[in-house]
Amino acid sequence: MELTVYLAGEIHTNWRETLKEKAAEKGLPLTFVSPQTDHDRSDDIGEAIQGKQPNKLYRDERASDVNNFRTQVMLQKADVVIALFGEQYRQWNTAMDTATALTLNKPTIIIRPESLIHPLKELSNKANVTVETVEQAIDVLAYVYE
Amino acid sequence: MELTVYLAGEIHTNWRETLKEKAAEKGLPLTFVSPQTDHDRSDDIGEAIQGKQPNKLYRDERASDVNNFRTQVMLQKADVVIALFGEQYRQWNTAMDTATALTLNKPTIIIRPESLIHPLKELSNKANVTVETVEQAIDVLAYVYE
Amino acid sequence: MELTVYLAGEIHTNWRETLKEKAAEKGLPLTFVSPQTDHDRSDDIGEAIQGKQPNKLYRDERASDVNNFRTQVMLQKADVVIALFGEQYRQWNTAMDTATALTLNKPTIIIRPESLIHPLKELSNKANVTVETVEQAIDVLAYVYE
Amino acid sequence: MELTVYLAGEIHTNWRETLKEKAAEKGLPLTFVSPQTDHDRSDDIGEAIQGKQPNKLYRDERASDVNNFRTQVMLQKADVVIALFGEQYRQWNTAMDTATALTLNKPTIIIRPESLIHPLKELSNKANVTVETVEQAIDVLAYVYE
Amino acid sequence: MELTVYLAGEIHTNWRETLKEKAAEKGLPLTFVSPQTDHDRSDDIGEAIQGKQPNKLYRDERASDVNNFRTQVMLQKADVVIALFGEQYRQWNTAMDTATALTLNKPTIIIRPESLIHPLKELSNKANVTVETVEQAIDVLAYVYE
Amino acid sequence: MELTVYLAGEIHTNWRETLKEKAAEKGLPLTFVSPQTDHDRSDDIGEAIQGKQPNKLYRDERASDVNNFRTQVMLQKADVVIALFGEQYRQWNTAMDTATALTLNKPTIIIRPESLIHPLKELSNKANVTVETVEQAIDVLAYVYE
Amino acid sequence: MELTVYLAGEIHTNWRETLKEKAAEKGLPLTFVSPQTDHDRSDDIGEAIQGKQPNKLYRDERASDVNNFRTQVMLQKADVVIALFGEQYRQWNTAMDTATALTLNKPTIIIRPESLIHPLKELSNKANVTVETVEQAIDVLAYVYE
Amino acid sequence: MELTVYLAGEIHTNWRETLKEKAAEKGLPLTFVSPQTDHDRSDDIGEAIQGKQPNKLYRDERASDVNNFRTQVMLQKADVVIALFGEQYRQWNTAMDTATALTLNKPTIIIRPESLIHPLKELSNKANVTVETVEQAIDVLAYVYE
Repeated sequence: MELTVYLAGEIHTNWRETLKEKAAEKGLPLTFVSPQTDHDRSDDIGEAIQGKQPNKLYRDERASDVNNFRTQVMLQKADVVIALFGEQYRQWNTAMDTATALTLNKPTIIIRPESLIHPLKELSNKANVTVETVEQAIDVLAYVYE
Repeated sequence: MELTVYLAGEIHTNWRETLKEKAAEKGLPLTFVSPQTDHDRSDDIGEAIQGKQPNKLYRDERASDVNNFRTQVMLQKADVVIALFGEQYRQWNTAMDTATALTLNKPTIIIRPESLIHPLKELSNKANVTVETVEQAIDVLAYVYE
Repeated sequence: MELTVYLAGEIHTNWRETLKEKAAEKGLPLTFVSPQTDHDRSDDIGEAIQGKQPNKLYRDERASDVNNFRTQVMLQKADVVIALFGEQYRQWNTAMDTATALTLNKPTIIIRPESLIHPLKELSNKANVTVETVEQAIDVLAYVYE
Repeated sequence: MELTVYLAGEIHTNWRETLKEKAAEKGLPLTFVSPQTDHDRSDDIGEAIQGKQPNKLYRDERASDVNNFRTQVMLQKADVVIALFGEQYRQWNTAMDTATALTLNKPTIIIRPESLIHPLKELSNKANVTVETVEQAIDVLAYVYE
Repeated sequence: MELTVYLAGEIHTNWRETLKEKAAEKGLPLTFVSPQTDHDRSDDIGEAIQGKQPNKLYRDERASDVNNFRTQVMLQKADVVIALFGEQYRQWNTAMDTATALTLNKPTIIIRPESLIHPLKELSNKANVTVETVEQAIDVLAYVYE
Repeated sequence: MELTVYLAGEIHTNWRETLKEKAAEKGLPLTFVSPQTDHDRSDDIGEAIQGKQPNKLYRDERASDVNNFRTQVMLQKADVVIALFGEQYRQWNTAMDTATALTLNKPTIIIRPESLIHPLKELSNKANVTVETVEQAIDVLAYVYE
Repeated sequence: MELTVYLAGEIHTNWRETLKEKAAEKGLPLTFVSPQTDHDRSDDIGEAIQGKQPNKLYRDERASDVNNFRTQVMLQKADVVIALFGEQYRQWNTAMDTATALTLNKPTIIIRPESLIHPLKELSNKANVTVETVEQAIDVLAYVYE
Repeated sequence: MELTVYLAGEIHTNWRETLKEKAAEKGLPLTFVSPQTDHDRSDDIGEAIQGKQPNKLYRDERASDVNNFRTQVMLQKADVVIALFGEQYRQWNTAMDTATALTLNKPTIIIRPESLIHPLKELSNKANVTVETVEQAIDVLAYVYE
């Protein structure tokens, strides 16, 4: 049973690479997909395709068109979602992807530090599993294959 | 045509009252529902019903059980969702409610200050309308009845 | 059995008034909802709420935000859709509303002149009934109450 | 991640071939499906299978049976939809396919010339991305694979 | 708890009247809707609205447009479906309505004589309850209100 | 906001009456529906309607036809489900109703004694809230109206 | 694009073999699935698995359990449904499979002789295409691959 | 036509191995998935991943997070569900998995001893087929491939 895993969440650390390595070490038959993790590219993609926009609002709108297109394609292909929240930034895309995945009945794991227990409590409560480390998330996936 | 409107979002200002007053002034046939807006009550509701929990994590889990129950009941009754993001706090519940509503195909209006254009750009892009003030949100609702 | 009927279609003739009068004459228990039929208001609604936009593209985007919000609210309330195509204009909103309604399994009647048989053939084929006059559309609705 | 792309839209230029070539140049793992692009064949398919019909209306009905069958099969297989609107013709099939795809939550790109901004504004507003050229549509798809 | 009941099935006996009387005797808060039970009207409704058609096939197509419109409106309003099969005729509309209702998860009762056990066995097996008389069907409905 | 509440669960104590009284004391605008709570009637309903069956298996099948019809009607009308598990019996109907309600996205409260924590752990985990007493369940419902 | 085709309909002629041969001649990449076409086996399958039943009603119920299981598995795998109605028998399974497929939005072709136009008119009207011969059905499928 | 079969039910006998062997003997192209069948591992998985919890309630909650994640992944991949009930234990997970599968329209077979006819009657009534032995369940699956 092969699974496609969408890795939502912060793009300022290399947690996705760590997670993929650990999955590979365990020999899990997983395919990973992700949002654009190059932050500048993600912010610029709208103007890169559509040309210069009249202001920042519209620069952002054109970028989010393309980023949302990408995410929608990937979420529909995903069997499982893992969402990592870090301590910095508002990370509303991560919250949006997690809530969207849960509403679509995608089995979902949240990774978040202990410091975020309180602000994430309602979202954690809707997720299947909430853990604190990438290793624990891999343990959950590995359990599916035991 | 009567509509039920779920008012997601921050609970530290009285924007819901302002919005309801303006709707009443215009004579719009709207019924409003909201999450628990008494912050302490919202945090305490789990232990209030289930008794003292062993630690903060579990105090939060029991509270979020009941808050999520309330939100799920209301979102399913809602014809329209208005979500207000303020400049403070992470407001992941607001993001969660907005993304859930959009995935359920509820017509949705986001209210956010200009300062939040960038971090909310993907969520705004999925919403039907994004405005900056409560008055503008009421204008959108009033337009449905023109 | 009361029904809500969404009247999609052209806004340059008063066909909606004719249809409502005929429904009233027959005493049918119908409630009618429609898109904005004041063309200028429909084009201007975005800037009326959001203020002056940098160019025509964005003026149109802000207007369509609000028009689509209105249509989505109404289509979800509608039990039945009637869509009238006239001989002028491209009327892509009418086609969009009709296809959306059909995909949502709303029972749908198309009214179109004989001259549009060929260009509308695939859409007519998906609709429940296609007729040429408002009177015929009312006859179809009246039949439900026989 | 392989994707099937349905290419809705006008059949009087060879934009589909251009698009496929550009996708091939970039090595994107895409499979393309399309409506019947031979206009005469598309108009004649009903009588070709069912024999001569009593008049043009019924000739068209029998053709649209088969064309709609084809489109329904393909849209259900498609992961992504690209719809191109040209300046000529009413192109109601293109509008129908686009609205159907969006209602089925298929990620959708519209390609249309600047001259069509206004009449297509509501449909563009519902699509994920609207661009003006085939090259830009390919850029959006390529971004999914970055 | 009020329920709307769609009465599918044969139109050559007055079983619907019998059933409604028995429901009234028991004081059950039920609203009944039905297909057109005037057989000639049902066959003629297409030409009555659309005018004379070129042949019997198209006379039937235009009638079925309107009959299917009526049934779709009513089935979507129905909480419960009762379908009666008699010993005569092929009654494919009754089978169609029953299978459609079951696929839409409408709770469904079939009434059929003992002689039809074998040919209806697969359809009966999918229905919630199969009985032989109108009285038994009313007993099932009455049980909901005990 | 009025809510219909389906009360699944054991039928050997009068917990439903207690719960309704407490809801009435608090003035909550709730309508309650339940499975058949007369155990003998529930077991006998099949033969009461269909006549004597050839053996116990078929006596049970005919009874469950009617009981499942009743439950399906009520669950579809319910906004909220409360399921009470007692210490005796296998109560597979209660488990079935709870899992069905959760899969239909009905907000659901489980009431179970502490002794059943372990065997009910997976079902509790999927429910919105799990409590030990009828009073606590009413507290959860009352919170929706605060 | 490979398609799975479910062949509903009569089991007393070898139309399925004819159809498969013609598909093979045209090199269409189709996989065919069907209900049990050995009539005696289909009638006997319940008792073959479950042992002798107390009467004909229950012999039929046990057979239809297994036949409906088979059909449900296959319909869910099918991309397209072809249903052939012959002149004999009531063929309620064929009508049931067709209406189920259409409600599940499976693209569907009906094959029926001219003599059945009238009794099948409402079901034909809901199907995508209705033809009179197996050859015509293959022509429709072949058109998808043009 | 390959099928994935989820084997819900008791984990104290080796019925799954017997069933797989019989499927292999018949050469059926089936892939089997199951819940965790090592009872201790299933009870301990929460603390194994998340560390020691404050009490038994929370030990169970953390285990059920992971068990439910596993089941949700597998049920969504499954084409068919087989659920075996034994005479011991309450087996609420088996009831939960069966009701969930049926609500998701998964074709489902129940295996249960004669002694459980009465307590399982409503659940059996909703399943496609109920049998008493593993051999009979395989016979049902084999029939799909005849």
